[in-house]
Amino acid sequence: MNQETQLYMPTRIIQGPKCLLNNSPLLKRLGKRALIVTGLTCSKLNGSLEDVIAALENENIRYKIFDQVSDQPTIETIQEAFEQNQREGIEFIIGLGKGSAIDAAKAIGVLFRNRGISAREAFNMQNLRSIPIVAVPTIAGSGSEVTPYSIITDHSLRQKKDFGQESFPKIAFLDPRYMYNADFSDLLANGFDAFTHLVEGYLNTKATFYSDLLAEEGFRLFSKLKAAFFGPQFPHEAMNDLLVMATLGGMVIAQTGTGLPHALGYVLTYEKGLAHGVATAAMYRGYLAQCQETEKLERMLETMGFSTLDTLLDYISELMDYRLDLSEEEIQLYTRTMIQNLGRVKTQMHRVTKTQLAEMYRLALRP
Amino acid sequence: MNQETQLYMPTRIIQGPKCLLNNSPLLKRLGKRALIVTGLTCSKLNGSLEDVIAALENENIRYKIFDQVSDQPTIETIQEAFEQNQREGIEFIIGLGKGSAIDAAKAIGVLFRNRGISAREAFNMQNLRSIPIVAVPTIAGSGSEVTPYSIITDHSLRQKKDFGQESFPKIAFLDPRYMYNADFSDLLANGFDAFTHLVEGYLNTKATFYSDLLAEEGFRLFSKLKAAFFGPQFPHEAMNDLLVMATLGGMVIAQTGTGLPHALGYVLTYEKGLAHGVATAAMYRGYLAQCQETEKLERMLETMGFSTLDTLLDYISELMDYRLDLSEEEIQLYTRTMIQNLGRVKTQMHRVTKTQLAEMYRLALRP
Repeated sequence: MNQETQLYMPTRIIQGPKCLLNNSPLLKRLGKRALIVTGLTCSKLNGSLEDVIAALENENIRYKIFDQVSDQPTIETIQEAFEQNQREGIEFIIGLGKGSAIDAAKAIGVLFRNRGISAREAFNMQNLRSIPIVAVPTIAGSGSEVTPYSIITDHSLRQKKDFGQESFPKIAFLDPRYMYNADFSDLLANGFDAFTHLVEGYLNTKATFYSDLLAEEGFRLFSKLKAAFFGPQFPHEAMNDLLVMATLGGMVIAQTGTGLPHALGYVLTYEKGLAHGVATAAMYRGYLAQCQETEKLERMLETMGFSTLDTLLDYISELMDYRLDLSEEEIQLYTRTMIQNLGRVKTQMHRVTKTQLAEMYRLALRP
Repeated sequence: MNQETQLYMPTRIIQGPKCLLNNSPLLKRLGKRALIVTGLTCSKLNGSLEDVIAALENENIRYKIFDQVSDQPTIETIQEAFEQNQREGIEFIIGLGKGSAIDAAKAIGVLFRNRGISAREAFNMQNLRSIPIVAVPTIAGSGSEVTPYSIITDHSLRQKKDFGQESFPKIAFLDPRYMYNADFSDLLANGFDAFTHLVEGYLNTKATFYSDLLAEEGFRLFSKLKAAFFGPQFPHEAMNDLLVMATLGGMVIAQTGTGLPHALGYVLTYEKGLAHGVATAAMYRGYLAQCQETEKLERMLETMGFSTLDTLLDYISELMDYRLDLSEEEIQLYTRTMIQNLGRVKTQMHRVTKTQLAEMYRLALRP
């Protein structure tokens, strides 16, 4: 842990059934015209889009909807959302859906704030700010509602990376009702994304007193929830805890950044189509085996209710249902790319070698 | 606990030795001209004013100093600080010192942001915003560095009350070195202010999942520190923990507000000159005896390391060195005033009667 400790978490978090409708006056402070950024279907089926529209109409806020965000939003989508709405007088953006929708909202907000800069240009700049963002996650996982991050896909470079803007959402509305009809496999993959945020933030060189406090609370919630991940249903009453766990995970990585499994997993999502939470969790056998923070690892396992590291690794293996086959050439290519990206690797507890990274991929294979 | 849970804590917290000097570029984002608001002596003796000036000079920020803040800043002082500096192009304010200096900085900031409104007018308005505030506490206690509150004295009404503005400080710099030469009695009185914030936030009807998480961590720190309050010295290495405990207390009351002991204690500070932390703690025998949150009270005692409520009350009594004699007429007067001020009384776990309030004062007497 650093001698200097920091905490920065400026997003106003409001959680509970109907929290959006009960707190709609807060939206009015952000402006008179909103853009809703969402995906094509989910938010229309789970009641969340209806709530957002009702909250905006309560406050006489006019709105436009952009519903073309996919699970891996691209630079082109960001540019398109801006161009379609640039003359609509948009003052704030509501990101509604999975982490991808909220991430896209942040990136689109940067273009509204910095007119004249294209999405591709912005993607290569740092510290750009955005117009105000409101985050309404419809599934617990990414924690994007409380982070400044925005992971966007660049097909020309065949990679996913942080858009690099630095605005946290102004408000996060967390309503567990939106998860009631979610697919169990989505709940699992997204729930594991949250789990990995807690772990990688906790076992991170940038961990602080405050991020550890939040992560340990997340581990306590995970210990209550871990049996429910075996399904076949996820109880409604547990969804509230899962939402809190995911938000805690977001608050943690907002302080620390993520760790090696995230960095190594992105390429598996991009090239092999593994869900992000699954791709990350797949790296855990190699990742935790080389973790040198033995004291924190012990405390983490104890708080989660696992007697040994192997028990945790077996638990993850049993839950993660995926196929992954990589040629030795692919492993070498991914490893080389990763080593070039030192910024990510150096947030680890200690430096890792190319050989170690390759071994982590090999341990994730399931031909 | 409410079904709807919230967290709002937008202040960037930076803690550690020399944190101000190490992070001075953050000040540059706030403007080119600063007003330093502080007391007459302490910040000149403990090295903090020197650090603030060095940090500002590092960033070529010009500054003015207003050093007339007393322990109970008045409406007149707030007005005076503004008038002296209103034509200096001040863009942000640094509150440097005890809670009183930071509270004063926030109120002065309101006048800079809302020109044409006098301090007395602002005192009776709600939700006014301020120009950016940077908080540099030089003693652990008030938590003002992470709250939107500003307690100001109105001699015309013989009372202290919240200035009612709603701006959190942008940044709180917490450097334990500024406490190294503090008087032990000041450390104790201020430390107990922090203690009462944790308790009154925890046993509060507005407590949330997040405020409880922060309060319980504060109780854990208090359990480590509680022996040190017997003095005669407070170890340097414990001062860092005390600063964290006080900041946690501030974060808690920023969510919940304070409780009955604070409301009842202000008059004892104003009329009888008791230090704020002492006046509040003096009310604890009556306050905790009527607390109906028995389960949370038990968990609190256990986390603090007290076997029974009486053990905690005896601990407080032993530490609080004060004299207090009130006539029955004074008790009736204070109680009547308090009952009229329902806004404060209703943040309690349950409604209290006039008879109960009077009894709380009687239990605090030490003729």
